[in-house]
Amino acid sequence: MSGNTFGKLFTVSTFGESHGIAIGGVVDGCPPGLELDESDLQGDLDRRKPGTSKYTTARREDDEVKILSGVFEGKTTGTSIGLLINNKDQRSQDYSKIKDSFRPGHADYTYQQKFGFRDYRGGGRSSARETAIRVAAGGIAKKYLKQVHGIEINGYISQLGPIVMNKVDHTVTNTNPFFCPDETKLDELDQYMRALKKEGNSIGAKVSVSATNVPVGLGEPVFDRLDAEIAHAMMGINAVKGVEIGDGFQVVNQKGTEHRDEMSPDGFHTNHAGGVLGGISSGQEILVHMALKPTSSISISGQSVDIHGKPDDVITKGRHDPCVGIRAVPIAEAMLALVLMDHLLRHRAQNTGVESITPVIPAQK
Amino acid sequence: MSGNTFGKLFTVSTFGESHGIAIGGVVDGCPPGLELDESDLQGDLDRRKPGTSKYTTARREDDEVKILSGVFEGKTTGTSIGLLINNKDQRSQDYSKIKDSFRPGHADYTYQQKFGFRDYRGGGRSSARETAIRVAAGGIAKKYLKQVHGIEINGYISQLGPIVMNKVDHTVTNTNPFFCPDETKLDELDQYMRALKKEGNSIGAKVSVSATNVPVGLGEPVFDRLDAEIAHAMMGINAVKGVEIGDGFQVVNQKGTEHRDEMSPDGFHTNHAGGVLGGISSGQEILVHMALKPTSSISISGQSVDIHGKPDDVITKGRHDPCVGIRAVPIAEAMLALVLMDHLLRHRAQNTGVESITPVIPAQK
Amino acid sequence: MSGNTFGKLFTVSTFGESHGIAIGGVVDGCPPGLELDESDLQGDLDRRKPGTSKYTTARREDDEVKILSGVFEGKTTGTSIGLLINNKDQRSQDYSKIKDSFRPGHADYTYQQKFGFRDYRGGGRSSARETAIRVAAGGIAKKYLKQVHGIEINGYISQLGPIVMNKVDHTVTNTNPFFCPDETKLDELDQYMRALKKEGNSIGAKVSVSATNVPVGLGEPVFDRLDAEIAHAMMGINAVKGVEIGDGFQVVNQKGTEHRDEMSPDGFHTNHAGGVLGGISSGQEILVHMALKPTSSISISGQSVDIHGKPDDVITKGRHDPCVGIRAVPIAEAMLALVLMDHLLRHRAQNTGVESITPVIPAQK
Amino acid sequence: MSGNTFGKLFTVSTFGESHGIAIGGVVDGCPPGLELDESDLQGDLDRRKPGTSKYTTARREDDEVKILSGVFEGKTTGTSIGLLINNKDQRSQDYSKIKDSFRPGHADYTYQQKFGFRDYRGGGRSSARETAIRVAAGGIAKKYLKQVHGIEINGYISQLGPIVMNKVDHTVTNTNPFFCPDETKLDELDQYMRALKKEGNSIGAKVSVSATNVPVGLGEPVFDRLDAEIAHAMMGINAVKGVEIGDGFQVVNQKGTEHRDEMSPDGFHTNHAGGVLGGISSGQEILVHMALKPTSSISISGQSVDIHGKPDDVITKGRHDPCVGIRAVPIAEAMLALVLMDHLLRHRAQNTGVESITPVIPAQK
Repeated sequence: MSGNTFGKLFTVSTFGESHGIAIGGVVDGCPPGLELDESDLQGDLDRRKPGTSKYTTARREDDEVKILSGVFEGKTTGTSIGLLINNKDQRSQDYSKIKDSFRPGHADYTYQQKFGFRDYRGGGRSSARETAIRVAAGGIAKKYLKQVHGIEINGYISQLGPIVMNKVDHTVTNTNPFFCPDETKLDELDQYMRALKKEGNSIGAKVSVSATNVPVGLGEPVFDRLDAEIAHAMMGINAVKGVEIGDGFQVVNQKGTEHRDEMSPDGFHTNHAGGVLGGISSGQEILVHMALKPTSSISISGQSVDIHGKPDDVITKGRHDPCVGIRAVPIAEAMLALVLMDHLLRHRAQNTGVESITPVIPAQK
Repeated sequence: MSGNTFGKLFTVSTFGESHGIAIGGVVDGCPPGLELDESDLQGDLDRRKPGTSKYTTARREDDEVKILSGVFEGKTTGTSIGLLINNKDQRSQDYSKIKDSFRPGHADYTYQQKFGFRDYRGGGRSSARETAIRVAAGGIAKKYLKQVHGIEINGYISQLGPIVMNKVDHTVTNTNPFFCPDETKLDELDQYMRALKKEGNSIGAKVSVSATNVPVGLGEPVFDRLDAEIAHAMMGINAVKGVEIGDGFQVVNQKGTEHRDEMSPDGFHTNHAGGVLGGISSGQEILVHMALKPTSSISISGQSVDIHGKPDDVITKGRHDPCVGIRAVPIAEAMLALVLMDHLLRHRAQNTGVESITPVIPAQK
Repeated sequence: MSGNTFGKLFTVSTFGESHGIAIGGVVDGCPPGLELDESDLQGDLDRRKPGTSKYTTARREDDEVKILSGVFEGKTTGTSIGLLINNKDQRSQDYSKIKDSFRPGHADYTYQQKFGFRDYRGGGRSSARETAIRVAAGGIAKKYLKQVHGIEINGYISQLGPIVMNKVDHTVTNTNPFFCPDETKLDELDQYMRALKKEGNSIGAKVSVSATNVPVGLGEPVFDRLDAEIAHAMMGINAVKGVEIGDGFQVVNQKGTEHRDEMSPDGFHTNHAGGVLGGISSGQEILVHMALKPTSSISISGQSVDIHGKPDDVITKGRHDPCVGIRAVPIAEAMLALVLMDHLLRHRAQNTGVESITPVIPAQK
Repeated sequence: MSGNTFGKLFTVSTFGESHGIAIGGVVDGCPPGLELDESDLQGDLDRRKPGTSKYTTARREDDEVKILSGVFEGKTTGTSIGLLINNKDQRSQDYSKIKDSFRPGHADYTYQQKFGFRDYRGGGRSSARETAIRVAAGGIAKKYLKQVHGIEINGYISQLGPIVMNKVDHTVTNTNPFFCPDETKLDELDQYMRALKKEGNSIGAKVSVSATNVPVGLGEPVFDRLDAEIAHAMMGINAVKGVEIGDGFQVVNQKGTEHRDEMSPDGFHTNHAGGVLGGISSGQEILVHMALKPTSSISISGQSVDIHGKPDDVITKGRHDPCVGIRAVPIAEAMLALVLMDHLLRHRAQNTGVESITPVIPAQK
């Protein structure tokens, strides 16, 4: 496997398996002088970690991140930042069932075929455990973006199975275990999830993430458009099967008069584009949606084959989220932060500075 | 602007503006020994080029590609391949209106803010004219994939405004000007497009592209998953606002029992995943959908501002596609070919060869 | 072959063979607003091109570069710059001798073994013809560095065979066909080269290149040190076999007290380091030396084998430089400009600006 | 700082400061199936580590490397390999002198100017401490190269100050604390180093490293030539000021007849080229030399300035090598292994396999 590095100027390279000794990474390219300590990163790690509610997996991972380098006297030095999270919950499990079988909907089959063998313990490298380091690295980017540009990044669940959230109130999102931004849906969600758990099944979800106060001008035309790199980042999150910017798939049945965001001296009238025009940020809110499939680890038996090609029925026992979409919220936030940070640095490299060109119109909805 | 290169091992770097002297590019990393001449690339360029039907822009671009290097005695040498297309239709236009105004829905505003000034002639670098080189480069990849692995890549329009195609018959797609794979919808499309043109408006579309015979094992886990790079490639096509792999956004309301593709010794039972599991190709058909916004260049006036922030009404005159989605079909095919080619080489680098591991189950639907 | 791209933020990707249709490239990452036209690049191309004196090859290449994109109304737009040089001198030669044999000291053998076959016409991609595009791309960097930072880059021959130049007077360098900076050596060089030509032999050379007014702070510690990337750039020039920064191999027998450049408020006392400390520019003159082997294309027969492994004697007829080192001078300047430009942009990305930190001591010898 | 990653397909990303908590890294791109455990890496780490003899620094670093991921049941899985070395010797030192002054010949000045402030403890990131991770990562490459291709990599001191080694006997190199391959020079070296230590001074050195059994065909023409990347790797080692391939700077005064390596069916007659022709390995021994400056940390006072630009005399107390060249031997080996491994993978990606093309002549001399 290669491809364990994300970004071009602000990069994170990660390592670690679900049931290995530790997971970790190297964050490279952070500007010097940013005040940083572990507590800046731990908040999002706690939001991501399992075992925080009855709706997510009961597995306990303390997810305590350590910063091993790159910070001196409380500030980033401009050198690479080493991150480490020890895997505390390596209970000696019985892997005899999973070892020789391919769980349907999992990466077991493709890893085995690609590499010839695989670390089957808890999914090895294909486990979402690895995303903890993305969240930690994204936390560094988030802090910089907030401090230097006032950029705010907010994720939330916009749909869970049949339940569609109608309001987006960021003050509500982090007060409930679903990252639901709509207070009126909390009871419905609670009932739905209880029923699902009883059934032993799982459900998909739609996660949304927005960024406000993004300066005009981030993104490189043609291949490295801001939206293209956001799509890369989001589709690279475990279980994501679709990504939209702004109106997304609704544009298929929109007319030009309806879609184009008209402007006046007071700003844009609408934001169908989701804050990106021609691959470059427009100064409006960046709005991204993604679809996450239902977790394949369920307690209802499924048909499969073993590594010798013989038929085999697979039941995934153990501790699993009935809706992986929920915990993806802080991951999506982290990935958006990483993309914006990388493009902020790329923009600075070539231009005299983000601040240098005064926007012609105010950044509005 | 940086970011004019796509790929890691099989790369294409492009240059050129809509109304400049020429567009071109460098394709690097093509294995030696592939039989190649211009005629291998011209077919897809002709499919992409405007002026081929009454439904697309009347602008005439001959789009005749020249291979300047990297081929000797009819075969690729393993050295970089120079591609060039001269811009024949550089008619001296009156740009006085567009020069100082921002067309709503276009990249005019963001380019101006990013770079301080812009080549306003026909959109400059933000024009879809640039994609001709992607199509040419993708043609090289397509030929290699077909010849060495029998990989077939087919794109088509799956929805245009309210008209949804119900059948996918690849033998139909290239016999009509809409890249429509459903013969029963051709009349409806014809009528819809005529009405739209009369109205002076434009419409969005959904484009799909599939690849068959892709070997198991392509894609690098974590950040450079096959689906993540496909999303990057597709979202980087002008006007694309959403990308789906397999069931895409339908997964939001699917249960685990419904989504996971079960397996038996005869192969997978279903293909909800769209041919990618854990970021790695499963051997099944790779299926990608994307949403393209309606072109913003319409002859109905829209509110905007000029470069000094003063209100201004903009009408885009001239030759423009009422549905940019249509011509995106060969571009989407090219981008999928570029991603698969790059990952084929990456896979070879690290593994003993794609061919070396016999799939445990046959690649089926 | 991959690897036809140089740089990370300011990149050039090249294509083209010695006797092909054209050579060219794409320069990506140039900041917008730089005044640029072909005449800015032609001067160095003329310095590099063969046929300019009786001491270099008689081959005539007009080397007329065209800028195909990325410049609008006389200024760079920030988009990628397409460069093209048509090969005018594609005389239909008799390649029957060279086709099946490996010229000793050439890349014939290694290309054949790597790729299975090769474009044998004039060395194909391994010919120094390709460096014309490096010179053109370097010309863009040179202009930017000069204009924005006052950085001056000067190359020269510091040794040719046994003849060592004792003085470096940049006003002398470009007034003679040897790029010799020491007026007192011109006669000796003339006589030496005449004798060499008569003998049908060739000779090595030492080329030096310096940059002044380089700001403190360019270069990334660890792997992408400024000196490491300079070494990469220079060793990548055809025929280069050694690279030194500052005192180079003289340091082997220096003591710590002798080598370390002491400082006082007036600046550094000496410049043994060659302007780079810990991989980062110190503000002093950057001084690089490189060793170029004698060209292997000589008219004295040499033992070799043919592509079937049979013994074969090879004489290289035709037009060849007896000292390839001479023409390498503008190439070395171009490569140094490309490295500095790339690191200037990288530095800007991460820091608040090169200009922001006032040097504690003046930049002096 | 960015640039903490080396390689393109087989990469290592490192972090860590001299006196921080730990140093570590991520190795990406290792093929699956290689048997690997810590003991494979520890040997070279022990060769590099200080405190092993009276000639090197007395500082004790246990340099015990841990593999945190990427290995399962004793074999690499193809996923990224996390490496960690805890810094055991973080004694609370008095940094008051070094904190505000620039040690002459060190990176103190350039780091301070680049980043605005610096981790002054033991040189922070600029310390050679960081190279331990390079050695560990190189150990993985070394093992693979040895096992799959029989490639042997051997480094040694070829000159130390005025003492030139006349013989290269690899069986001698690791039996003495100087990595000296010439038994007859051991006494002279011992006396020289004792005198030097007494004097409180330091001395430069020339380190050489060779690789045998390298297949023909590694290296990418033009910018990513094998020799160019070797130069990059070696010049990136702390204190290196010059790099040579094969005859290196001797070529300056060689004639074409003398330098070109003639061939016959039995192989090459000579190896002036050092195993690289046109940037591609020829199958001959790859031979690299590098010059390392005397360490600047000496106990003889030197003139400098403090961070406010005031004059200041600096004496570096503490534990330092009088000849940093000695410990650079395993580092140079590791870097050569990393370059060869990366190019082996790159070559495989594009070609049908290194093994596929039978060399026309045997690899000799």
